Amino acid sequence: MTTTSAFIGLGAMGFPMAAHLARLAQDTGGHALVWNRTPERARAHAAQHASTAVDLQDCAQADVLFSCLPTSAEVDEVIRQLGSRLRPGTVWVDCTSGHPDSARRQREVLSAHGVTFLDAPVSGGTNGAQAGTLTVMVGGPVAEVDAVRPHLAFAGKVVHVGDTGAGFAVKAINNVLLAVNLWAAGEGLAVLGKHGVDIGAALEVINASSGRSNASENLIGQRVLTREFPVTFALGLLAKDAGIALDVVESVKGSAPVLAQTLGLYRAAAQIIGEHEDHSAALKLIERMNAQEIT
Amino acid sequence: MTTTSAFIGLGAMGFPMAAHLARLAQDTGGHALVWNRTPERARAHAAQHASTAVDLQDCAQADVLFSCLPTSAEVDEVIRQLGSRLRPGTVWVDCTSGHPDSARRQREVLSAHGVTFLDAPVSGGTNGAQAGTLTVMVGGPVAEVDAVRPHLAFAGKVVHVGDTGAGFAVKAINNVLLAVNLWAAGEGLAVLGKHGVDIGAALEVINASSGRSNASENLIGQRVLTREFPVTFALGLLAKDAGIALDVVESVKGSAPVLAQTLGLYRAAAQIIGEHEDHSAALKLIERMNAQEIT
Amino acid sequence: MTTTSAFIGLGAMGFPMAAHLARLAQDTGGHALVWNRTPERARAHAAQHASTAVDLQDCAQADVLFSCLPTSAEVDEVIRQLGSRLRPGTVWVDCTSGHPDSARRQREVLSAHGVTFLDAPVSGGTNGAQAGTLTVMVGGPVAEVDAVRPHLAFAGKVVHVGDTGAGFAVKAINNVLLAVNLWAAGEGLAVLGKHGVDIGAALEVINASSGRSNASENLIGQRVLTREFPVTFALGLLAKDAGIALDVVESVKGSAPVLAQTLGLYRAAAQIIGEHEDHSAALKLIERMNAQEIT
Amino acid sequence: MTTTSAFIGLGAMGFPMAAHLARLAQDTGGHALVWNRTPERARAHAAQHASTAVDLQDCAQADVLFSCLPTSAEVDEVIRQLGSRLRPGTVWVDCTSGHPDSARRQREVLSAHGVTFLDAPVSGGTNGAQAGTLTVMVGGPVAEVDAVRPHLAFAGKVVHVGDTGAGFAVKAINNVLLAVNLWAAGEGLAVLGKHGVDIGAALEVINASSGRSNASENLIGQRVLTREFPVTFALGLLAKDAGIALDVVESVKGSAPVLAQTLGLYRAAAQIIGEHEDHSAALKLIERMNAQEIT
Repeated sequence: MTTTSAFIGLGAMGFPMAAHLARLAQDTGGHALVWNRTPERARAHAAQHASTAVDLQDCAQADVLFSCLPTSAEVDEVIRQLGSRLRPGTVWVDCTSGHPDSARRQREVLSAHGVTFLDAPVSGGTNGAQAGTLTVMVGGPVAEVDAVRPHLAFAGKVVHVGDTGAGFAVKAINNVLLAVNLWAAGEGLAVLGKHGVDIGAALEVINASSGRSNASENLIGQRVLTREFPVTFALGLLAKDAGIALDVVESVKGSAPVLAQTLGLYRAAAQIIGEHEDHSAALKLIERMNAQEIT
Repeated sequence: MTTTSAFIGLGAMGFPMAAHLARLAQDTGGHALVWNRTPERARAHAAQHASTAVDLQDCAQADVLFSCLPTSAEVDEVIRQLGSRLRPGTVWVDCTSGHPDSARRQREVLSAHGVTFLDAPVSGGTNGAQAGTLTVMVGGPVAEVDAVRPHLAFAGKVVHVGDTGAGFAVKAINNVLLAVNLWAAGEGLAVLGKHGVDIGAALEVINASSGRSNASENLIGQRVLTREFPVTFALGLLAKDAGIALDVVESVKGSAPVLAQTLGLYRAAAQIIGEHEDHSAALKLIERMNAQEIT
Repeated sequence: MTTTSAFIGLGAMGFPMAAHLARLAQDTGGHALVWNRTPERARAHAAQHASTAVDLQDCAQADVLFSCLPTSAEVDEVIRQLGSRLRPGTVWVDCTSGHPDSARRQREVLSAHGVTFLDAPVSGGTNGAQAGTLTVMVGGPVAEVDAVRPHLAFAGKVVHVGDTGAGFAVKAINNVLLAVNLWAAGEGLAVLGKHGVDIGAALEVINASSGRSNASENLIGQRVLTREFPVTFALGLLAKDAGIALDVVESVKGSAPVLAQTLGLYRAAAQIIGEHEDHSAALKLIERMNAQEIT
Repeated sequence: MTTTSAFIGLGAMGFPMAAHLARLAQDTGGHALVWNRTPERARAHAAQHASTAVDLQDCAQADVLFSCLPTSAEVDEVIRQLGSRLRPGTVWVDCTSGHPDSARRQREVLSAHGVTFLDAPVSGGTNGAQAGTLTVMVGGPVAEVDAVRPHLAFAGKVVHVGDTGAGFAVKAINNVLLAVNLWAAGEGLAVLGKHGVDIGAALEVINASSGRSNASENLIGQRVLTREFPVTFALGLLAKDAGIALDVVESVKGSAPVLAQTLGLYRAAAQIIGEHEDHSAALKLIERMNAQEIT
């Protein structure tokens, strides 16, 4: 089988993800199309990774079409633009951190064109995207999920989590857990700092103890204590994801007071600290709340 | 140097910790005394680990005296009972998850007897205690901390985190982070369950993603999804530790809304689910709040 | 002008509200139709208040049609059933504690029949409904709001708060404030009780002081301290309203951590204490959380 | 009985309170001494209200000694300075918004001098102080409370709420309820504002509805919507009182997640907006969190 893939959205995650698809195409005699809103970036991808930069309409020729965009709204817009060019039999794999409600609507819209839709958001950050070790959480019918597995060249692990929308739901919950764990660690360290405790030593202890989390192990030391706050994942996007998580809570009338509170605090941080800052910069709001730097 | 150590409090943690001290004594020609409120347990330790079960008063003969008790109140009581038998030059290492205010008071009381006090709580659970790989977070003067390092036979890592009380403060913050991370994961999984998402698959994804924490990786799969909730660390004790964490916040007039809310929820869980249940059983309250099992 | 009004939904609020419309009809030579899902209640209304009990379809003859139902979903269903019988020029005044999104959709649906829709929820409880002193908060174009004022015979105060949906939004926020004020007073009194403070005396003081609220003045003394918890407004309905309030927050990406937390706690109370209990029974959950009765 | 009273602390509350004591002295042939840290203010009081400005030591001559200071720490300091000059039989009435733990300690310290101590904080604001209609919540033995009632010339209502410390506990809980009710109303109105709802109309509705509170009725309209934020009660002092309330929660291991979260937010507001701003200016933080003015 020679497959044509298309990748829509060459952002910090999409660019290296599409590179793995290009490599797969080279290995299997297939084709890897790429498109980006700013075409220079697509041309750069073609130059670096031997993919083919195309117009958006040409993406409709793909057998497997990937999208990785900021929010489900941009995916809706791309679907609208491709519209009637879409061909029956195409599989659309949306790696956006999207909204479960959007997934159900998008699947319905695309099915009218004979296109199947899978929500397949990823986790692992830009490092995982480069290494091709992303975790992909997929929502949709099991047979469709199994059929698409060989094409997920950027994945280290593919997990089928439930029906359409379940992938986005799990991703949103994962990200709000990141938000909670990060914020709580920030509160704890700020308060220890006010006591004159050595914050670096405290973090070292926590990271060897039961209170550790990915946030404490991989974000606070590298981004907060260094004062670097490198922008790899924007605060506004994490707040957006936490908002999707709360929608997930609300749509089943769930009781999740800690997740709900944390969303409120991240929205506040995005407003007060800046939505374009790195997500780790949420802790700058904690610093202001406590008049205490986390260093 | 041949050293006599004494270990007061042979609970789930203290029993295996004292075993490492007994082994050290055998290797160095020293003595390892043990005491427990119920003496059978001390005799069992002596039989299994070649330590020496003694009366409480005899612990005052030790060069290094360890305590590992439920709360600082029990440590106060033991100090009161040993009283004038304490000998100048003794070092008291308290591995209890104690209170920073108690540490300062205990250090003052003991210094009247010429005894130095270090707050040295541990992390790593019963597995770490058995393996001798506990993390010890020590508060006190750096010279005293360095002097006691060779005696901490149960430690994998010893970190000096600040002055007297800092060890207890860091331990309390670590444990409230455990509490937050565990609770938040519970909220998230319960809500996903209400959506019909496969909770085991969702947990697998989270544990390979940015929202993971020690709580999600090592507690929920083994204790909650299995419905076993084995009692290795009681819910009431975690609520107690979270209460100490809030005291740590309050004593510097800190702003920590997420830690504060979480304490309230754990206090509620201890009342409604039962303080003698395992700490992971806090998620049973989330299950009732959502009419949704986390399985 | 002789007007025919119809009132759909003769619940605890609707029954006395419709009585005021019947009185207005008698005074002005108009007609007051009433309908209820269980027709006995409509016949009882007709007998007591000289209204006319009719079939649902006959309500379409009214000039002004009122609805007062549990949620917007029931209003949708009634609109669907009336469907093509609706006559151009009719004004539909929905007094349900409804959803702003539903209001906009309902207005659109009805406008296709030439019917105008106003969201006009009420506040004041069953006492206010009987006395005809309800506060009505209306969303919609100002001219339409002014035109309907003479027909609101159950109102003590009519306030135009904004465009379509604004009435429902204000009502939802009002009710979540009731929920917060009630819950917070419950937390405070439970804790004072644990201290051995005289809760009745404390409530008396608070009600003469800055911490007082409608909840502390009119609910806790009469419903909680008496242990009567009379069911005039169900806990499940207040939780539903708080959920609408959070939707109001979410639809503008607002930051409202206290409202969000409180919703989570009311959802929990509705599950654990029972959704059909009175809303004041939410404090029974606080009592369990604290092992302390509020008496 | 001719009585000598002394009033220590002529702040915004103490100044008019002491005026009522001076009037009582004139009516009954007694004496009313006043002292203030900055003596000009005491001299002004003497000139305006025919009280007698004295040195601090001379206050020890009073039969009934009142204090009304920022926190219990200042009361401790005054007790220390008066020390051995205190005379047996004196009654010390502390109207400070103090700490229950301090009350118990102060009562013990003063009893060594034969002086009885009553914690008797007040509510009603500067208006109530001027009108002599304050609510006084008193902790202590019932006979002592009854004996002092005739001397509380500034009171409209005197309520005995429990043993020593109970007065301060009730005051702290009252004030944290004020804090919660105010904050929640702020969140609700900010979100309505983002929807384009008329905030003034919404407030009018809420104040006629079940969500109303003293905060919504008497603070938001006069202080927030006018943008005046007049400083009659500082944000830092309300945050301090909320902190005492949390101490009240903690000392009985209570579960009060909403009070706890709110304290965290007021601490944050005091840091970010300014502790010397009026307490109503806490809502400026909500405005920043939502990028929405409450006007």
